[in-house]
Amino acid sequence: MNHSTEVFTLSAGPTMATHRTLAALGQPIMYHYDPVFLETFGRTQRKAAEVFKTKNDMLLMQGEAIVALEGAARSLTKPGMKVLNLVQGVFGKGMGYWLESFGAELHEIEVAYNDAVSPEAVEKYLQENPGIGLITMVHSETPSGTLTDCAAIGPIAKRYGALTLVDAVSSIGGLEFETDEWQLDIVVTGAQKCLAGPPGIGMVSVSPAAWEQIESNPNSPRASYVSLLDWKEKWLEGGAFPFTPSVSDVHGLESVLDQVLEEGLDNAIVRHTNAASATRAGAQAMGLELWAASESIAANCVTSVRVPGDLEHLDIRAHVRAKYGVMLSSGQGAGNLMRLAHMGPSANAMYPIVGLTALGQGLRDLGAQVDLGAGIEAAMSVIAQNN
Amino acid sequence: MNHSTEVFTLSAGPTMATHRTLAALGQPIMYHYDPVFLETFGRTQRKAAEVFKTKNDMLLMQGEAIVALEGAARSLTKPGMKVLNLVQGVFGKGMGYWLESFGAELHEIEVAYNDAVSPEAVEKYLQENPGIGLITMVHSETPSGTLTDCAAIGPIAKRYGALTLVDAVSSIGGLEFETDEWQLDIVVTGAQKCLAGPPGIGMVSVSPAAWEQIESNPNSPRASYVSLLDWKEKWLEGGAFPFTPSVSDVHGLESVLDQVLEEGLDNAIVRHTNAASATRAGAQAMGLELWAASESIAANCVTSVRVPGDLEHLDIRAHVRAKYGVMLSSGQGAGNLMRLAHMGPSANAMYPIVGLTALGQGLRDLGAQVDLGAGIEAAMSVIAQNN
Amino acid sequence: MNHSTEVFTLSAGPTMATHRTLAALGQPIMYHYDPVFLETFGRTQRKAAEVFKTKNDMLLMQGEAIVALEGAARSLTKPGMKVLNLVQGVFGKGMGYWLESFGAELHEIEVAYNDAVSPEAVEKYLQENPGIGLITMVHSETPSGTLTDCAAIGPIAKRYGALTLVDAVSSIGGLEFETDEWQLDIVVTGAQKCLAGPPGIGMVSVSPAAWEQIESNPNSPRASYVSLLDWKEKWLEGGAFPFTPSVSDVHGLESVLDQVLEEGLDNAIVRHTNAASATRAGAQAMGLELWAASESIAANCVTSVRVPGDLEHLDIRAHVRAKYGVMLSSGQGAGNLMRLAHMGPSANAMYPIVGLTALGQGLRDLGAQVDLGAGIEAAMSVIAQNN
Amino acid sequence: MNHSTEVFTLSAGPTMATHRTLAALGQPIMYHYDPVFLETFGRTQRKAAEVFKTKNDMLLMQGEAIVALEGAARSLTKPGMKVLNLVQGVFGKGMGYWLESFGAELHEIEVAYNDAVSPEAVEKYLQENPGIGLITMVHSETPSGTLTDCAAIGPIAKRYGALTLVDAVSSIGGLEFETDEWQLDIVVTGAQKCLAGPPGIGMVSVSPAAWEQIESNPNSPRASYVSLLDWKEKWLEGGAFPFTPSVSDVHGLESVLDQVLEEGLDNAIVRHTNAASATRAGAQAMGLELWAASESIAANCVTSVRVPGDLEHLDIRAHVRAKYGVMLSSGQGAGNLMRLAHMGPSANAMYPIVGLTALGQGLRDLGAQVDLGAGIEAAMSVIAQNN
Repeated sequence: MNHSTEVFTLSAGPTMATHRTLAALGQPIMYHYDPVFLETFGRTQRKAAEVFKTKNDMLLMQGEAIVALEGAARSLTKPGMKVLNLVQGVFGKGMGYWLESFGAELHEIEVAYNDAVSPEAVEKYLQENPGIGLITMVHSETPSGTLTDCAAIGPIAKRYGALTLVDAVSSIGGLEFETDEWQLDIVVTGAQKCLAGPPGIGMVSVSPAAWEQIESNPNSPRASYVSLLDWKEKWLEGGAFPFTPSVSDVHGLESVLDQVLEEGLDNAIVRHTNAASATRAGAQAMGLELWAASESIAANCVTSVRVPGDLEHLDIRAHVRAKYGVMLSSGQGAGNLMRLAHMGPSANAMYPIVGLTALGQGLRDLGAQVDLGAGIEAAMSVIAQNN
Repeated sequence: MNHSTEVFTLSAGPTMATHRTLAALGQPIMYHYDPVFLETFGRTQRKAAEVFKTKNDMLLMQGEAIVALEGAARSLTKPGMKVLNLVQGVFGKGMGYWLESFGAELHEIEVAYNDAVSPEAVEKYLQENPGIGLITMVHSETPSGTLTDCAAIGPIAKRYGALTLVDAVSSIGGLEFETDEWQLDIVVTGAQKCLAGPPGIGMVSVSPAAWEQIESNPNSPRASYVSLLDWKEKWLEGGAFPFTPSVSDVHGLESVLDQVLEEGLDNAIVRHTNAASATRAGAQAMGLELWAASESIAANCVTSVRVPGDLEHLDIRAHVRAKYGVMLSSGQGAGNLMRLAHMGPSANAMYPIVGLTALGQGLRDLGAQVDLGAGIEAAMSVIAQNN
Repeated sequence: MNHSTEVFTLSAGPTMATHRTLAALGQPIMYHYDPVFLETFGRTQRKAAEVFKTKNDMLLMQGEAIVALEGAARSLTKPGMKVLNLVQGVFGKGMGYWLESFGAELHEIEVAYNDAVSPEAVEKYLQENPGIGLITMVHSETPSGTLTDCAAIGPIAKRYGALTLVDAVSSIGGLEFETDEWQLDIVVTGAQKCLAGPPGIGMVSVSPAAWEQIESNPNSPRASYVSLLDWKEKWLEGGAFPFTPSVSDVHGLESVLDQVLEEGLDNAIVRHTNAASATRAGAQAMGLELWAASESIAANCVTSVRVPGDLEHLDIRAHVRAKYGVMLSSGQGAGNLMRLAHMGPSANAMYPIVGLTALGQGLRDLGAQVDLGAGIEAAMSVIAQNN
Repeated sequence: MNHSTEVFTLSAGPTMATHRTLAALGQPIMYHYDPVFLETFGRTQRKAAEVFKTKNDMLLMQGEAIVALEGAARSLTKPGMKVLNLVQGVFGKGMGYWLESFGAELHEIEVAYNDAVSPEAVEKYLQENPGIGLITMVHSETPSGTLTDCAAIGPIAKRYGALTLVDAVSSIGGLEFETDEWQLDIVVTGAQKCLAGPPGIGMVSVSPAAWEQIESNPNSPRASYVSLLDWKEKWLEGGAFPFTPSVSDVHGLESVLDQVLEEGLDNAIVRHTNAASATRAGAQAMGLELWAASESIAANCVTSVRVPGDLEHLDIRAHVRAKYGVMLSSGQGAGNLMRLAHMGPSANAMYPIVGLTALGQGLRDLGAQVDLGAGIEAAMSVIAQNN
């Protein structure tokens, strides 16, 4: 199997891109100071801000979204400052290691990796621990498929005088997200999840309060690939690139932003919701158990199911890919689970059917009891209602 | 719905192309006398002959395959000659109208459009009607999804001194086809069916005996778009194009020939067979009836099912496309039937599942009784065994 | 040399396509009855009519433009009718052979292949030869690079009651052309010349008077690949395709029509004019002689120059391609001449410089006296004035 | 002007990509743990090593090449170590600022930005200043178009026990470069210069001695976007990506490596040499002065010329782009100069002519005295000899 029509990429990012996105990535490469590219870059920034629903500054950082997360965390963390890190999965955990190594006094609220930190717990912690300057959280924990309630936590943070840094890598473009309405200071996303774009570019929005903190932080990276300040001082204020931007990735990014804006963000969110509903209904009707402790904290960009019996997630992933040409994601550190993503194009009508059928039959091939027919009936019933 | 990842094209041609094919169609357009294009054109002819399994001359004719069929039929038909036309579907029927208008004395063996003319019937007819100079037949009647046994009829024709003209438009590249082994004189195919290429180019192989007939026929088109002789005299013998060839379509065609040759024709045939088997098993388990009178004459490139109850095929096609983003084919003159194609990439593992699920649920939406779960179980069982 | 950036295609069609056109050709292939494609096809027809500047019916015929020319000539020619064919080059000459073979009583005005038939000569002929039912002419004789004055001849034909059939294959999209204003009945063009599209699709506009003639002509092709009537009766009147259209070519065609309409037809015409002016100035300053008898009849889509000394055009074409990676056109039957085309993208600022430099140095390599520096100075002087 | 065929990108990177490269960038996006992508990534690493001519470890770092330069410089610099930085241009100067900020004891040999640090000067410095642990240099200073003699300096460094870190961003793939033969420890390049690929990916080769230094350096970045160690420990040794790689950029990178390896590195080097020779000859014959102090230190990837009279480089760049559709580079900090690049496809026959003509006429438009004709004559004379 080696051509794309033979593989269904239903993984949790990078995910399959539309043909339009691929065509955009293959556009002629221009000089970065070509007047056409300068316009393109600025226009793409503005479209990204529209998708973030923010009036804050928007930076397009060259690299996988983690470059922007690292840059933001380094830039915000003053030595010795109190930072509250919310942990409900692998990415939240990793942020804690970073914060400590950047010199923060680390505070954490940690729950099981199939659960979510509640806004109430956050508020209680802030009451009991005055002086927290920054709260870090992951909106959608991709490896577990769970959500954090940023809509509630953002305003709480503001009330207690803390800045917020949100990893929204796998949510923006597919899940509801309101940067300004939720009062979030720094928000980071990537192109390769719900936007279904290339993995080589990150986006980060920065509020005036966050800039103030960054500029007053002696540890903020400068003259560095991970520097937010370089982009602000050279590009936003001076019109010069700190280094050559990735022309192709900007083309790809503009295209996926165009696509979601043309579809309408609200429509895209409904589409992701429907795909997740169908998948959850199908998986449960097949006899599989959802990973998330409750449906209310299950993210609509990726459905995680517990691996049944004594099977191993990596074996299942390899078997389904090899035998049925369907690329799913496995647990990636969060547990023995399998993930069917609903991101961009894969959050469309028939993809949940493809994913459920391949997973169900694959599990059966490996010895599990699966009621495939019932699963497809249940999923199609949801799809028929919603489409 | 307007981007490709939102539509599954499971129609009976044009069918979905691989990304590699699309990239080939988008290659830079060269001048037709550029030395690189001259090499490309010759190489593509040779690859087409390899896929036809023939040592006969190969012409690449500029237009949908029907341009080659018209050219071949006009070129072979001398005024007043006896031609036996085998009719088991729409395309066979149409050939008869042509033959008469071109001046032939028309003989026909016609069966119902869900049946096939048997080799025995052909032999009997030839015994009883001496002097038949040409037999015309359609290997795979796409609108009904049925096969003609060209492997048997070719040698019979030779024994009775008749030339053969075979419409193999929807079979070559996906079904077993042996031009020379089966002793066929003129064979025509297109790129947009099992080869999953662009619809703008036809291929035609011509045996020495056929050329002799064509050259001695005063009615053979010359200086015409449908002329086979122009291509022979100008291009094959003189290295000059009779008119500008479609550079892009040749690029697309070479790519699909490469793809099937790299995969191996035998492997491609097995793949089409497996997709058809899964689809037939699934459709029947859902409670649907196959259109073909028997499985032995069902073509592996497209599965036709009888429309249940008093539903109408065009309504079903429109509903399934609008609601589930799956483009199926309907009857196209052969009857009240729906068709799920297995052509090129759509003859891969999970596409039969997509087609069956969308069709099954669509029929149910419109009021039919369909056991969707049983259908998917049956189809996946076949796929699990064969993959 | 094997990748496109190593070859400058400055030939007289097919010519280099823009990246946008190539991307359009590589769009996903849809089923021809997919609702999205049905809309695309109709929209493309309307855009073609806009480029033709006509309210007449527009047909998109599947194949190189010559399929439409053949179809139009066959459809209009009643047995024994008097047809006046204007000959000033290879394509005009070929039309005469066709007309005779289709049963016309052939009348011709023929001039040398570097000259043009004047409107006065046509009017005089019509006065002296009453009963001419059709006048056939070639707007731009690509192999010689000369123009016919259709703007004047169209109204003359109307006054004498004759229909007109115009081969505008290499002019529409780059040269001034007014189908309705000039009162032309049937006009044919292709995509691969000034529109810089794929060579696999023709466009033809048909006036009501032409349809009347076609419908009353017993020889009009029907049920044929070259039939105009099939497209009228099945597609224009019935919404059904007479056969599968070339989905990819329609995508490519719509894109090139979009491009020229977005640029503005008038702007495109100015661009072609400027490129031709620069090239003519450069060629003459180099010491080369223009092929056209006077500049007033030189077509702005292709500049022909007389081959100097005893050199041979085919040798020059091969040498320039092999040594400098520039693909020019040679004489193609019209004489010992070399052609630098200005078609679509090649009618842009620096391409005339590339063509002139490669041709000039190539001629010099082969022994001719060429003042290369003076040629570039002269051409750039024109470009600097016009840009 | 907005489509690619209307702009000649002759800038000093990003430069124009071949159509094949663009097609590779537009290939379907796969999951990074798809078995096909895992193979692709490993294969691309090996091809990069082949182009570097090294048996050292090869890392593909996600971002513009500067991410790899920063990572390498941080990783090699132990606090207080003596580093000798060679400065002959903007990038060399910047490295010095970095080294100091990373805690090195900075030593520099600096010459004018149109000159080159000689191997003799390096050797003398090392003799006089024992204990230098690292020498940093820029093989090709893109903003000035000058070369450093790494072939000589590499072995000198080894003799004095110093590691070497070489910025070869704009040379590999177009200029002679022998990582192992020249005994270089860390070499960094990007894809967007002589390889004419996307700007989003860096490559870095690391010798065993360099790894030893990095592993023993407490300041080596870990768990960071700029970390070399992360890639070594997770990917090279563990088969797991430290973060999601840029699938599209890897596709684009493999393609450009394939292209240069198929052409042959030696052939590519000759091609760049010839383009530079033609350009230098043309510029001088026009009356322009080369920026480089002597031809022997002029880099063959970009020719810099001094701006004549009192003109300003940025004005010239803007004028030539706006009026002639040619994108050149200007000085970028190195001085009042204009640059015509020869990188990848632009190092082909006719591009120097395009660049020289547009620059020459542009300068003339702005008031300079330029003998355009003589320049083209001189350049074509070199091209005619070499092709």
